[in-house]
Amino acid sequence: MSTVSPGRPDLRRLGPAEWPHPADFAAPPTRAERARWEEADRAARPRRLARLRERMAAEGVDGYLGLRWEHMRYLTGLPFDESEVTGSGDSGKFLVTASDVFVLADSRYTIAVARHAPDARVFEIQRQMHEHWADLVADAGVTRVAVEAMSIPHLTWERLAAAAPNVELRPIEGWVEALRQVKDASELERVAAASAVADRALASLLPSIRPGVTERELALDLEWRMRTGGAERLAFDVACLAGPEAALPHGSPGDRPVLAGAVLLFDFGAQVEGYRSDMTRTLFVGEPSERDLGVYETVAGAQDVVFAALDAAVSAARDGGGPLPTGPAFDAIARSFIDADGRWPSYGHGLGHGIGLAVHELPGLGSRSPNEPLPTPTVFSVEPGIYLEDETGVRIEDLVVLDVERGRADRVTLFPRDVVIVGT
Amino acid sequence: MSTVSPGRPDLRRLGPAEWPHPADFAAPPTRAERARWEEADRAARPRRLARLRERMAAEGVDGYLGLRWEHMRYLTGLPFDESEVTGSGDSGKFLVTASDVFVLADSRYTIAVARHAPDARVFEIQRQMHEHWADLVADAGVTRVAVEAMSIPHLTWERLAAAAPNVELRPIEGWVEALRQVKDASELERVAAASAVADRALASLLPSIRPGVTERELALDLEWRMRTGGAERLAFDVACLAGPEAALPHGSPGDRPVLAGAVLLFDFGAQVEGYRSDMTRTLFVGEPSERDLGVYETVAGAQDVVFAALDAAVSAARDGGGPLPTGPAFDAIARSFIDADGRWPSYGHGLGHGIGLAVHELPGLGSRSPNEPLPTPTVFSVEPGIYLEDETGVRIEDLVVLDVERGRADRVTLFPRDVVIVGT
Repeated sequence: MSTVSPGRPDLRRLGPAEWPHPADFAAPPTRAERARWEEADRAARPRRLARLRERMAAEGVDGYLGLRWEHMRYLTGLPFDESEVTGSGDSGKFLVTASDVFVLADSRYTIAVARHAPDARVFEIQRQMHEHWADLVADAGVTRVAVEAMSIPHLTWERLAAAAPNVELRPIEGWVEALRQVKDASELERVAAASAVADRALASLLPSIRPGVTERELALDLEWRMRTGGAERLAFDVACLAGPEAALPHGSPGDRPVLAGAVLLFDFGAQVEGYRSDMTRTLFVGEPSERDLGVYETVAGAQDVVFAALDAAVSAARDGGGPLPTGPAFDAIARSFIDADGRWPSYGHGLGHGIGLAVHELPGLGSRSPNEPLPTPTVFSVEPGIYLEDETGVRIEDLVVLDVERGRADRVTLFPRDVVIVGT
Repeated sequence: MSTVSPGRPDLRRLGPAEWPHPADFAAPPTRAERARWEEADRAARPRRLARLRERMAAEGVDGYLGLRWEHMRYLTGLPFDESEVTGSGDSGKFLVTASDVFVLADSRYTIAVARHAPDARVFEIQRQMHEHWADLVADAGVTRVAVEAMSIPHLTWERLAAAAPNVELRPIEGWVEALRQVKDASELERVAAASAVADRALASLLPSIRPGVTERELALDLEWRMRTGGAERLAFDVACLAGPEAALPHGSPGDRPVLAGAVLLFDFGAQVEGYRSDMTRTLFVGEPSERDLGVYETVAGAQDVVFAALDAAVSAARDGGGPLPTGPAFDAIARSFIDADGRWPSYGHGLGHGIGLAVHELPGLGSRSPNEPLPTPTVFSVEPGIYLEDETGVRIEDLVVLDVERGRADRVTLFPRDVVIVGT
C-alpha cells in the first residue's frame, strides 16, 4: 500500500533506465498450480451449492434456474464463457434442487458437460428450454423455482410459465453474485496470477512504443504478449488510446498513431484458470506537458486517498469488528479529492468494481452501487480518472484485495504507478 | 460450384508440393475499400430504417425498441459488438420512431455515439433504462412500442411496463433479423473479404503443423495470422481439434498435441468491417486411415449433393420465378445422403446458418429452422459433419452466396476441399 501523504503522491519519473522489467513480476503459473486451482474449485463446489441451497430454503423455493455462464462455472465447473454462450442455445443452463444439479445440454455439449461437470446430471435437450420445461421440473420434483429475472428473456419467462402453469416462477436477482463476491484463497491467487501476466506483458512492451506506431498495433502486440505469457484468454479487449482519444473512457484502439508529447493509455487484463485481471496505466510519450502531469498527479492522489481509507477501514474492522464502509463511500472519497483540487472535472464512471470469473461483478464502488458494507475477503479495482474532451485523459487502475481477517488491503497490480516515459 | 457427380466427390490428394499458397486468395482489403463499405452502410441505413418503419406501420406500433448490438450497428452505425455489450449497461439500446432514432448513452459513450451514429439523436442516461423510460417515450411521442421479447430481460420488461403504464409494450421477434438476412453487395463483399483473410491464414499456417505441436498453439498461431492479415477481430474463437477431439462439434483447443495418422480440424473465421466469415477444414496429419478417408469422402459427398441442389434451385427460381426451397429441405438432403451411405451416424447440429454482422443469423438450414423459402441474395454456411465419439470427426464448412437474380450459388470459401496432407 502507498504510504505517502494523501494528496501529495510521491511519483518517480521512470525513463528507459528505470523501467520495470518483466522479471520483476511473478512468472506464469505452472501446470501444477493450475491443477491445484482446478482441484480447489472441485472441492469448493459443494460448499458453494450448500450456501445457495440455504438461501433457497430461506426464501421458500425448491429450485434455482441458473442462466449465466459465470454462475455455471462457479457452481458446476463447466467452463463456458461469453464467447461460447452466443451459439450454445439453452445448453449450459442449469437447475439446482435440494439434492441435484441438472445441466441442460444438446447433442453438441453432452460430452463437454460430462467431462467438466462430473457431479452434475446431464439433462439432454433437443429443442428450446421451454419445450422441455415440464419434463425437467417433473424429473427434478420442484414446484417453486427462483429465476434470475435480469438474465432470462421476457419471452422465455412467459413460455416457461405457460409450459408448467403449476410451477411458480419467482423473479430473483443477485443470489449467486452475492456468493461470488467473497473469494477463497485459490480465487484470489488466480486474480493475482492474471494480474502478473498483465504486468509482465506491459513491461515487455515498453521498448516497442514509438511515436507513429498505431494504437491497434500496440493493442495487438500487448494481447499477444499476454496470450503467449500465461493467459488462456484476454479478460476483455485491450484498450490502447493515444492523446485526446484517452478522453474516451471506453474507446477502442484505432489506426491512430502514438503521439509524441501526449499520453498513451492502456486498459487491459488477462484470464488465468477462469479468473480475470484488469489494470490501466497511462504512460507519457516523451516529455509530459505540465497539464498532463497535473492531471496525472491528481488521479494518483485520488487513488492514494482511497488506498489510505481502505487501509484504515480494514484495520478498524479487524480491531473493532464493525462492518466495512460501503462501495459508494469510497467512490465519494476519490471524487471529493478531485473536486477539492478544483482544476479538473471528475470522472463519469464508478471508482471501481469487483472482479473474478467476470470482469465486472460485485462489489461495486460507484456512486450508485449497493449501499452495503464491502464484503471480505474480496478483490476490486480502484480506477479514478480525469477526462478532458478532445485534449487528454488519464486513468490509473489497480486491483486491491481486501481481507479484514488479515487486516490487509493489498494492491495486486504491481506495475509501478509512477510517471513512465516511453518512446524517447 | 462443384461439378462432380453427387456422391462421388472427386477429391485430390494435396501434399506439400500441391498445397494452396496464401497468394492464391484475395489480398486484405485496402483502406479505400473499407472507406467505400463504410459509405455504403451510411447510404443503406435510411433504406433499412424505412423497411423497419413499414413493418412498424403494418403492425400498428409507433416505436421499436432495439436491444441487440447487431441491429444497432445495422440501423445506426454504432460499431458495438458482443465484447462491448457486457460492460455498456443500457448504452447503445435505441428507439426507432416514425421520424427519429434515439440512441441511449451514458457519459462513457456519448462521444462514441455522436461519432459513429451521426444521424441518430443521443438520449443521455445516467441510470438504468427503466428510470428514463417515461421521459424517453414522452420525448419520442410513442404509445405502442415493439420490443424484442427474446432479448429484453424479464425484469426490464416489467420495469418498463410499470414506468409508463400507458405505453403498450408489444412482444415481437425477428423483425430486424428478417431484414438482415437479405444482403446488399457491400455486405456480401465483406463476407467474401473476411473469408479470404481466413483462407490465406490457413494456407500460411500449413508448414507449421507438425505432430507434437498443441491444438492451443496452432489456434493462437492461426488467430495471429488472421489478425495481422486483415481481420479487425476474429469472428469467434478458433477451434483446433486433433484426432478424437474432432468428434466434439463445439470443442475448444487444449494442450493436446497434434497426432500423426489422425485428423486435425480447424473451425474459424475473421471479421472485416463488421462482417464475419466461418469455415471448417479437416486436414490429415500424415497418411489418412481408411476409416478417416471414408468419413471424409462421405462428408464431402454430402456437401456436393447440397451444392448441386442449390444450383438447381437457383436456376429454377430464376427461370420459373417460384420461391426457393426451405432451409430444412437442404438439411434433409445432406442428412439423407449420409444415412444412405449407411456406414456412419449423421450430425446432430444443423446443416448451416446465415452469417453477416453475427456469426449465426438467418437463414437457418437446420431441421428445426423456419419452414420458409430461402431469401435472396443471402449468404450461409454448408457444414455437414460426421462424428465418431472417442475416435474421429470430420466437418467441412463452406460459405455460399445465393443470388436468384444472377442465377448463382457461389462458394465464397476458396481454400480447397481436397484431402490435404500435413505434418509429413
